[in-house]
Amino acid sequence: MSAKTAAESRDGVCFSLDAETRVKLERVGSANVANVLLGHGFRNIMMPGLKPLNGSQRQLVGPAYTLRFIPAREDIDSMGDYSRDDNLHRIAIEQCPSGAVLVVDAFGCLGGASMGDMMAARLVHRGVAGAVTDGGFRDIDAIAQTGLPCYQREAAPAATPIRMHPIALNEPIGCAGVAVYPGDVLVGDGDGVAVIPRELVTEVAEAALAAVEYEQFAAREIARGRSILGLFPATPESRVEYDEWVAAGRPEQH
Amino acid sequence: MSAKTAAESRDGVCFSLDAETRVKLERVGSANVANVLLGHGFRNIMMPGLKPLNGSQRQLVGPAYTLRFIPAREDIDSMGDYSRDDNLHRIAIEQCPSGAVLVVDAFGCLGGASMGDMMAARLVHRGVAGAVTDGGFRDIDAIAQTGLPCYQREAAPAATPIRMHPIALNEPIGCAGVAVYPGDVLVGDGDGVAVIPRELVTEVAEAALAAVEYEQFAAREIARGRSILGLFPATPESRVEYDEWVAAGRPEQH
Amino acid sequence: MSAKTAAESRDGVCFSLDAETRVKLERVGSANVANVLLGHGFRNIMMPGLKPLNGSQRQLVGPAYTLRFIPAREDIDSMGDYSRDDNLHRIAIEQCPSGAVLVVDAFGCLGGASMGDMMAARLVHRGVAGAVTDGGFRDIDAIAQTGLPCYQREAAPAATPIRMHPIALNEPIGCAGVAVYPGDVLVGDGDGVAVIPRELVTEVAEAALAAVEYEQFAAREIARGRSILGLFPATPESRVEYDEWVAAGRPEQH
Amino acid sequence: MSAKTAAESRDGVCFSLDAETRVKLERVGSANVANVLLGHGFRNIMMPGLKPLNGSQRQLVGPAYTLRFIPAREDIDSMGDYSRDDNLHRIAIEQCPSGAVLVVDAFGCLGGASMGDMMAARLVHRGVAGAVTDGGFRDIDAIAQTGLPCYQREAAPAATPIRMHPIALNEPIGCAGVAVYPGDVLVGDGDGVAVIPRELVTEVAEAALAAVEYEQFAAREIARGRSILGLFPATPESRVEYDEWVAAGRPEQH
Amino acid sequence: MSAKTAAESRDGVCFSLDAETRVKLERVGSANVANVLLGHGFRNIMMPGLKPLNGSQRQLVGPAYTLRFIPAREDIDSMGDYSRDDNLHRIAIEQCPSGAVLVVDAFGCLGGASMGDMMAARLVHRGVAGAVTDGGFRDIDAIAQTGLPCYQREAAPAATPIRMHPIALNEPIGCAGVAVYPGDVLVGDGDGVAVIPRELVTEVAEAALAAVEYEQFAAREIARGRSILGLFPATPESRVEYDEWVAAGRPEQH
Amino acid sequence: MSAKTAAESRDGVCFSLDAETRVKLERVGSANVANVLLGHGFRNIMMPGLKPLNGSQRQLVGPAYTLRFIPAREDIDSMGDYSRDDNLHRIAIEQCPSGAVLVVDAFGCLGGASMGDMMAARLVHRGVAGAVTDGGFRDIDAIAQTGLPCYQREAAPAATPIRMHPIALNEPIGCAGVAVYPGDVLVGDGDGVAVIPRELVTEVAEAALAAVEYEQFAAREIARGRSILGLFPATPESRVEYDEWVAAGRPEQH
Repeated sequence: MSAKTAAESRDGVCFSLDAETRVKLERVGSANVANVLLGHGFRNIMMPGLKPLNGSQRQLVGPAYTLRFIPAREDIDSMGDYSRDDNLHRIAIEQCPSGAVLVVDAFGCLGGASMGDMMAARLVHRGVAGAVTDGGFRDIDAIAQTGLPCYQREAAPAATPIRMHPIALNEPIGCAGVAVYPGDVLVGDGDGVAVIPRELVTEVAEAALAAVEYEQFAAREIARGRSILGLFPATPESRVEYDEWVAAGRPEQH
Repeated sequence: MSAKTAAESRDGVCFSLDAETRVKLERVGSANVANVLLGHGFRNIMMPGLKPLNGSQRQLVGPAYTLRFIPAREDIDSMGDYSRDDNLHRIAIEQCPSGAVLVVDAFGCLGGASMGDMMAARLVHRGVAGAVTDGGFRDIDAIAQTGLPCYQREAAPAATPIRMHPIALNEPIGCAGVAVYPGDVLVGDGDGVAVIPRELVTEVAEAALAAVEYEQFAAREIARGRSILGLFPATPESRVEYDEWVAAGRPEQH
Repeated sequence: MSAKTAAESRDGVCFSLDAETRVKLERVGSANVANVLLGHGFRNIMMPGLKPLNGSQRQLVGPAYTLRFIPAREDIDSMGDYSRDDNLHRIAIEQCPSGAVLVVDAFGCLGGASMGDMMAARLVHRGVAGAVTDGGFRDIDAIAQTGLPCYQREAAPAATPIRMHPIALNEPIGCAGVAVYPGDVLVGDGDGVAVIPRELVTEVAEAALAAVEYEQFAAREIARGRSILGLFPATPESRVEYDEWVAAGRPEQH
Repeated sequence: MSAKTAAESRDGVCFSLDAETRVKLERVGSANVANVLLGHGFRNIMMPGLKPLNGSQRQLVGPAYTLRFIPAREDIDSMGDYSRDDNLHRIAIEQCPSGAVLVVDAFGCLGGASMGDMMAARLVHRGVAGAVTDGGFRDIDAIAQTGLPCYQREAAPAATPIRMHPIALNEPIGCAGVAVYPGDVLVGDGDGVAVIPRELVTEVAEAALAAVEYEQFAAREIARGRSILGLFPATPESRVEYDEWVAAGRPEQH
Repeated sequence: MSAKTAAESRDGVCFSLDAETRVKLERVGSANVANVLLGHGFRNIMMPGLKPLNGSQRQLVGPAYTLRFIPAREDIDSMGDYSRDDNLHRIAIEQCPSGAVLVVDAFGCLGGASMGDMMAARLVHRGVAGAVTDGGFRDIDAIAQTGLPCYQREAAPAATPIRMHPIALNEPIGCAGVAVYPGDVLVGDGDGVAVIPRELVTEVAEAALAAVEYEQFAAREIARGRSILGLFPATPESRVEYDEWVAAGRPEQH
Repeated sequence: MSAKTAAESRDGVCFSLDAETRVKLERVGSANVANVLLGHGFRNIMMPGLKPLNGSQRQLVGPAYTLRFIPAREDIDSMGDYSRDDNLHRIAIEQCPSGAVLVVDAFGCLGGASMGDMMAARLVHRGVAGAVTDGGFRDIDAIAQTGLPCYQREAAPAATPIRMHPIALNEPIGCAGVAVYPGDVLVGDGDGVAVIPRELVTEVAEAALAAVEYEQFAAREIARGRSILGLFPATPESRVEYDEWVAAGRPEQH
């Protein structure tokens, strides 16, 4: 990690993701990731109830930079306090590393916004890969126009300090009932968001992509009229066929 | 039913739908169907909370072929078991008749997928008319691309055997709190899915289409500035007007 | 209010909105409105859980004309009763003033429709600005085609009298847990619907637009690479910059 | 109704209940009432989710005196406003007739209290028969000690004006999704609260008590070892047996 | 199983439970059972959200006899139909074996009753060990008086055929999201209901009781002031101590 | 704080509560506390949805010692890990100061237990004042027998490490949507749990007790037949009466 900038490594956490793995993860579904992780014994890595801001946003891929909120208290949280430069919510926007994903533990709160369009614009400028909250965002039409891949439960337009107080950066958090340790890698598509433990990311990306490539073979066979029995999920026999097809250069017809 | 193929009739259930009735049902709204059935005394035939996979899928019409799940148990359900050729989930995909709709009693479970993209592709190839679950599907972006009309609560990307065990085909089931007997005919649009008891399908299709045609007359009148009072819902007087308009060849102006 | 038509003022309530204020409110987000109202001490003016019928409908702006439902009772509510010309649901459709928004207290009920496509068509013809319910509508595909801005929890296609009885027009109501007094002004976008107390509408429109214009400045600065610290939320210093930029004619570069 | 006091009749609504009918309704279950009303075509007369304050409170019986809340607004609702003598919440406590039940449409709100212990004490002193809300009460330990039969969703201890504004007395309301017209008669036990349309109360009390008396016969037979088949629900034959048993003076043995 | 009566074995399912195992299971908590089953790899065997009818009912222990409901349909389900002797709901009450537990898949429905007091009285007379539903019961005050251990979500007093149709006996079912195969053994206390796969019941009872007995030792140590560290959960060292204590005759002091 | 033991002060947080204030808080309702705090501008200090374990437990009073959980992950959380002496869940049980309340941020999780009976027994022995979780406990019958005042959403009997991982002690947390800073003082009764910011505890205890004492006067007046108007909430005039009554030695009659 010799060439990493300061922004890419904080508190001993590595927020970088090698380009090859990122490319692989951009090609796989969150459900493929979930299947591979199930093979490793992980049963709770998809965030239930989180939906993309709109149907056309691109795939979410990146390591998690976390922000934890607790409920607001009227003597501590106000619009005035919110404007201070040491407000952790705003610091998170300035410090989330390029290529990382801002992951917000909003304790499921929809009474205040986890982010608005100005913050999203700043994340886009800074090269952040996306934002995920188990609460919601405000200005969602404008955020959608930035193209930043975002996941939320539903829109939460009220001012953040009405209900939420930012309390910590880069602690392990829960988001939508799933554990997120800083540096874990998130993959999001229409199905939602999967969390890959950081130690396993290279291995999982490899295996998920292999599953996707087999599915391309299976889809082609299905289109030709073949039953899913003996084809999907793969059998030893169908894997041999797949390998032959790959060896033959993945021809359209065979 | 002499000319039915084996696939169209199982366990004494008729899964065919005559072309004329199908065409009618493709022109009516699920809400029109609900209204007609209310006139027959049925108050609980729309499946609450089920939404189309996306806004552009075509109308869902077809007889119900049912699949019932119960919760999974770790000693019975595994990815290995899932791959077996006698797994009822996979058999349902292979046996749901052409023109029918696969209706899944997932006991509302979002912890596992009621179907994925490979299964959806196979249904499309086999000419199945759509799929409905009171749980959710995985790979929903890919399923949406197949064009198969699908209804779910929300995406459920986790592997099926984590939480769900297929236990029976073509039993009467509940789906989203509505009774579905095999062979009942489903009609789905943006409002959701209506279930027509199989004995009533011809009659209901006829009456729902008549309502839609009257609504075309009413819409034209409303566009010309007429009040809904005395026009919608129809009165005896407005029905006379409608009949005259129909007799006149449904002119744009009169 | 000398030139108001009867339809624009009922029961002493003014349902008109001056054109200048309307134009301002069409340019601001509901979240901007919420922020301004928070400054006035209002913490509960966004209707949680209400979503636009589709993503492409135009901004909702207009004074509230209210309709209150209570649960139906079988001896009072029937399709026959529903067709009567003194049915308050239908009268609301005929009397909601041009430029106003029909706001429905459906006590959160999804078991019957708060409105269907024929009613929506009539509202469009009459120049009504939109419809909001804390229940749902039926025929939502057809309503979406009318272009009428509509907000609901989710589709509710069953016939209204199965579960809902219209009991009063233009009473103060609750809608989705927010107080709505007739004449209050609603502003709706992708984030949902905000309610502005009628006495404050001119003032709030002014302040919300000012916030939007500052955000245009801030967005431009963010696009140029500036941190949100010291820029958003605005500081006294950044406001000076903004004023200078405005005085300079809002140049693209400075 | 010649001898009624002013308090017993308001706005043309009769809040009295003859002693004989009251005694009958104190002996029947809310589920018996529901069954009789189902025979009259009423399917939605039990308030789902409302529970007695504690297990030992006595049966709730009495005509409904209604109070409707809407959500609070910060410029209208405050502790100061709450103390005013024209606050409708407090007036309801003073005017709810003796023998009647205070029924509160709290729009399901748990963010403020529908009643506290001082109000409950006053209701007890005034001879009010009970209180029902689709929100909740505060000081529930103290209310329970007064013995006043009360039903709520769950405790709601926050100050009323934080979230609730009393807007009207003795309008038809919805409470927990059930229509309540002033003067309708409520019957509550451990199963919850049933609402009897006022026109039917004598008839329903009679029929429900008859059902309870038959059940006493059936219970005795069951205790002696008889199957419920042919016994419960009653058959023509078992009704003859019952009549004979009644004619014989309801002997312990026969 | 030579001496079993017909009532104790149906469709090849054994509904008996040997007296020794039953006694053990009456002494353990459902949470102890859950812990033991977790050691066998079972993570989903407690039924979430089901509560005992009251706090004083005795421990529930017995093999599952299942009843599956689907939603009612107005042309099939009526009070008249309900009274027929071939109604499966009523047959279940007559055929559920002595010592077994009636487990109802009510598809979570609270709109109709899974059982009432007459049915409960009959179960008591027939020696049935309890009743469990993922819906609710009616006449719960009266059922509580019978002493039959019962678990439900909440009271559901409406007549069964309004919303529920009994469709099958002794099929594998889901109840509150947990798989129940006929003959599985249920254990219920204040924490809720645990389901033991029938093959494991002897083994689980043994291990759960061993855990309870160790807890008695641990409770005694804790009462004497010892830390839970090194004591609970048990360590190899603390198990030696426990064994010595048992060998010494479980003295009050040592 | 010179005489405090190590256990009473951790990380600079004071967990002691002077005896006089504790006695006052044992005499007031959580709703009284909420009212006083509303006067200080606090609107969100009651924990919604948390209920006492049973109706007979004593009042909960004490400073908060916090434990934060995040969701479990299969590679980190196991029964083996759970038994380690550095498990923070178990350390919390050993270190929560005497007189304090263990407050658990369980992120609302009911899939694992926030505490069981052995842990509760240890807390009792150590003089801890109670336990509060926004999840649930296991072995609740046994915990109830210890007499420890406990609040939860509902029972959660599954083993903790199935779903929960203890991540930190004495951080500021959210519990049931309310902010809890270590040292804040909790007051719980049948209405639920109120949180008093630690700086305000003396003042709030004083004012809440004053309110309770006035209510004793008001209750006496109500019992004598007086209206709540002019009496409750207190007016300047009624406060004079109250003061006179206090000055007269709070006589039964006056």
